[in-house]
Amino acid sequence: MLAEIITIGDEILIGQIVDTNSAWMARQLNLIGVSVKQISSVSDDEQHILNALAEAEQRADIILITGGLGPTKDDITKKTLAKYFNMGFRRDEGALDMVRQIFEKYKRPLIDINMQQADVPEGCEVIINKNGTAPCMWFEQNKKIFVSMPGVPYEMMYLMDDEILPRIKSRFKLPSIVHKTILTANIGESFLAKELEEIEDSLPAYIKLAYLPKLGQVRLRLSAKGENESLLKTEVENFAQKIIAKIKKFVVVDEDVQVEKAILDIMKNEGLTLSTAESCTGGYIAHLITQHPGCSSVYWGGAVAYAYELKESILGVQEGTLTKFGAVSKETVIEMAEGAIKHFKTDYSIAVSGIAGPDGGTEDKPVGTVWIAISSKNKTLAKVFNFSNKRIQNIERSASSALVMLLNLLKEDLHKE
Amino acid sequence: MLAEIITIGDEILIGQIVDTNSAWMARQLNLIGVSVKQISSVSDDEQHILNALAEAEQRADIILITGGLGPTKDDITKKTLAKYFNMGFRRDEGALDMVRQIFEKYKRPLIDINMQQADVPEGCEVIINKNGTAPCMWFEQNKKIFVSMPGVPYEMMYLMDDEILPRIKSRFKLPSIVHKTILTANIGESFLAKELEEIEDSLPAYIKLAYLPKLGQVRLRLSAKGENESLLKTEVENFAQKIIAKIKKFVVVDEDVQVEKAILDIMKNEGLTLSTAESCTGGYIAHLITQHPGCSSVYWGGAVAYAYELKESILGVQEGTLTKFGAVSKETVIEMAEGAIKHFKTDYSIAVSGIAGPDGGTEDKPVGTVWIAISSKNKTLAKVFNFSNKRIQNIERSASSALVMLLNLLKEDLHKE
Repeated sequence: MLAEIITIGDEILIGQIVDTNSAWMARQLNLIGVSVKQISSVSDDEQHILNALAEAEQRADIILITGGLGPTKDDITKKTLAKYFNMGFRRDEGALDMVRQIFEKYKRPLIDINMQQADVPEGCEVIINKNGTAPCMWFEQNKKIFVSMPGVPYEMMYLMDDEILPRIKSRFKLPSIVHKTILTANIGESFLAKELEEIEDSLPAYIKLAYLPKLGQVRLRLSAKGENESLLKTEVENFAQKIIAKIKKFVVVDEDVQVEKAILDIMKNEGLTLSTAESCTGGYIAHLITQHPGCSSVYWGGAVAYAYELKESILGVQEGTLTKFGAVSKETVIEMAEGAIKHFKTDYSIAVSGIAGPDGGTEDKPVGTVWIAISSKNKTLAKVFNFSNKRIQNIERSASSALVMLLNLLKEDLHKE
Repeated sequence: MLAEIITIGDEILIGQIVDTNSAWMARQLNLIGVSVKQISSVSDDEQHILNALAEAEQRADIILITGGLGPTKDDITKKTLAKYFNMGFRRDEGALDMVRQIFEKYKRPLIDINMQQADVPEGCEVIINKNGTAPCMWFEQNKKIFVSMPGVPYEMMYLMDDEILPRIKSRFKLPSIVHKTILTANIGESFLAKELEEIEDSLPAYIKLAYLPKLGQVRLRLSAKGENESLLKTEVENFAQKIIAKIKKFVVVDEDVQVEKAILDIMKNEGLTLSTAESCTGGYIAHLITQHPGCSSVYWGGAVAYAYELKESILGVQEGTLTKFGAVSKETVIEMAEGAIKHFKTDYSIAVSGIAGPDGGTEDKPVGTVWIAISSKNKTLAKVFNFSNKRIQNIERSASSALVMLLNLLKEDLHKE
C-alpha cells in the first residue's frame, strides 16, 4: 500500500513557510503500515496541480493533498480537483452548518465568501472539519483514493487522526511495518558503519538499516516490513541487541525518542527534578523540555540569563568571575549550573554559555565556542565544545550536546547506586 | 528560469525528519530571481531517483538535489547520478584532500570508506565542501544543470551561499522578483479578502496577492515579476500602501520579518530593554527572540517559571496570589510581568501563564486558556486567550499573541511621545 503527499501552495515554493505537515503525515501513515512513496510541493497553478495528481495516481494508491482550500482567490485546489475528476459543484449542508457554527462561536458575520467554503465537487464525500471552515473531501477513482485537506496544521492533524487514518485502516489489509531506533552520540556515521558492517551484511532483505546523522548524534533505524508483526518485532529486536552490544559506549537511548524525553522519563521514574540556566541557547533547552506533556513533574524551570546582570541576580554568578574569566568560561558556566541547583532547589541542572554568533567571537574564543555544565547536588561536570557553525545550528548543537551530557550523567549516577 | 529541488532520503518519507532544507533553498533562489517549480522528496531507491530526475529535467532548468551522499550503504545518490548521466567514476584529488583535512582536524583515523567519499562521476565538476566529507557535484546535460549537495543543513547552506548561488547569478540573465509582505493580526483571512477585494481586482497580471494565515496572524504577500526592478518596486509599494491604508488597524508590521524581529528593531532603535517571564510557553518566547543576531542589546533574559516555587523565588509572585487565583489567572500573570520589570530591571516585560495541555484543564479553565501580560514601567496590560488546540500549537499561538501584544503596545507608546 503506497501513499503520496502533495502539498499545494506558493508559500512553500518561495520558502516562506517550512512544510512540517508532510513529515507528520508520513509518520502517521508509516505507523499503520502505509509507505509514503513521494512527497511533492507544487504551486497554486492549475496545470501544475493537474500534472502532479496524474503522476501521483500512477505511483500510489492513496494521494493525500493539503493546502489551497482557503476562501481567497489564490486558493484553487477545490476547483482543480473538480476539473481533474470532471465534476460540477454542489453546496454541502453539513459543511455549511459547520461554517455557520464557527462564525457564531467567534461572533463574526457570515459573508458569502465564507458560505462558498461549503461548495464541493459533487462526486466527493465530505468529511466535516470541526476546526475550520474548509471541509475535507474524499474522492475515489479507478480504485485510487484522493483526500484533500486544509493546510492549517492542527486542522489537518485532527482530520488525519480522527477520520482519515481510521478509514484507511478499516478499508485495506495493511502489511506490518516495524521500526526500531537506536540513538548514538560521540561517534561519526562512517565509524558506526565500519563497526556495524558485519551485522549489516547479515540482515535479511526485508530488514533495512539506516543512518540518520543530526546535530552530533546518529540515529540508527532498523525497519522491517512483512506479514507477521510479532515475528518481525522479534527479529528486529534481536538485530538491535546485536548492534547495541557492538557499540555499547556510544548508545544514548534505544528507542525513537528525543533525548530530552528520555531524560524526562528517567527522572520522573526516579522522582528527580531539573532546572536550566541558559545563556547562548536562550531558552531553547527549556523549550525542548516543555514541549513534552507532563514535564512539569520533573522540570521546575530556569533562567535565560543573557545579560551579565541576570547571571548575577538570578543565578548568583560572582561579578568577579564574569570580569576575570568572561561569560563564556568554565568558571562562569560552573557557577551558573551550581547557582541553578542552589536557587531553584532541583536535583540536577544544565547550564550553557557560549558564543552563538555571528558576532562576539575572538581569537581565543571563536564563534561556536560553548561551555556546558551539568550539576547535581554532589558534583559538577563542565566541558567545552567548538561547533563553528551558524547561529541557529550553534544553538541547536549546544542544546543537543547539553542534553546528551545530562542523560549520560544520569545513567552513570543511577548505575552506581 | 525555473528550478526544482529534490531531496533524497527515506528519513523524510517515514517522517523521521522535517525537510527544512527545501524552504531555505527556495527562499534563496527566489531572492535572485529563480522560481521554484516543484519540491519533491523521494526515497533512497535507484529507479525512483532516476524517475524524479527525468521528471524534473522536463520541467526545470536547474535541478538542486540534496541528501544521500553519506558514506553508508543506504546512501545511493552518487551511484544513481552516475547511472543517470551514464558516467564512470574517478577519485577527485581536491575532494580527497578535504576529507584528509577534516579527519586530521578531528584526529580520527582515515579509513577506506571515508576515502571513497572523494570518488565522483567522471563527467561532473567537483565543488569542494569545506564543512564535510561529501563533495558537491555540478552536472550539465542538454543545457540543464544538476547540482548534488549533502543533506546536512549547514553544509548545504554554505555551499549554496558561497558557491551555487554566485554561479547561477553569473551564468544566467535572471528576471527581477519583488516581494512585499504585510503582517496583520486580529482579523480572519476571509474578512481581509473582502476588505481588499477591489484592490486585488485592480492588480495587473504580473502582480499577485497571497494570504498566508499562521497562528492567528495573516501575512499578505504581494509578488511581482518582470524586467525592470525599480519599476516593479514602485508599483508593488504603491499597492502595498493602498492595502495598508485600507486595513490600517490590523497591520502589525509592513515588512517580511517575524514579529519578534520587528520588536527588536524598534527597541534597539529606542534604546529599550526587554525581559520575559514564561510559564506555559516554557522558554519558547525567549528562544524566538534569541534566534536573532544582536538581540542581546535589547533582550536581557528572563525566567522560565514552571513550578510555583520559581514563580515566587525568581519573579516575586505572592504565594497568596497563586493559592487564591491559581497560576493561570490575571492576578498571577500581572505579578509575573511586574516582577520581571522589578527584578530584571528592563523597560518592558512579557509574561505568559496558561494551560498548554493535554492535561491540566478544568471546566472553568479548559486546555488552551492562556493569560498574557505586557508590562512597562508605567502600566501593565493583561488579556486572556482561548486557543483550544494541541499542546505545541497552544505554545506557539501563546508566543505569537504575546509578541503581537508587545509590538502593538510599543507602537502605541512611541506614538504618544
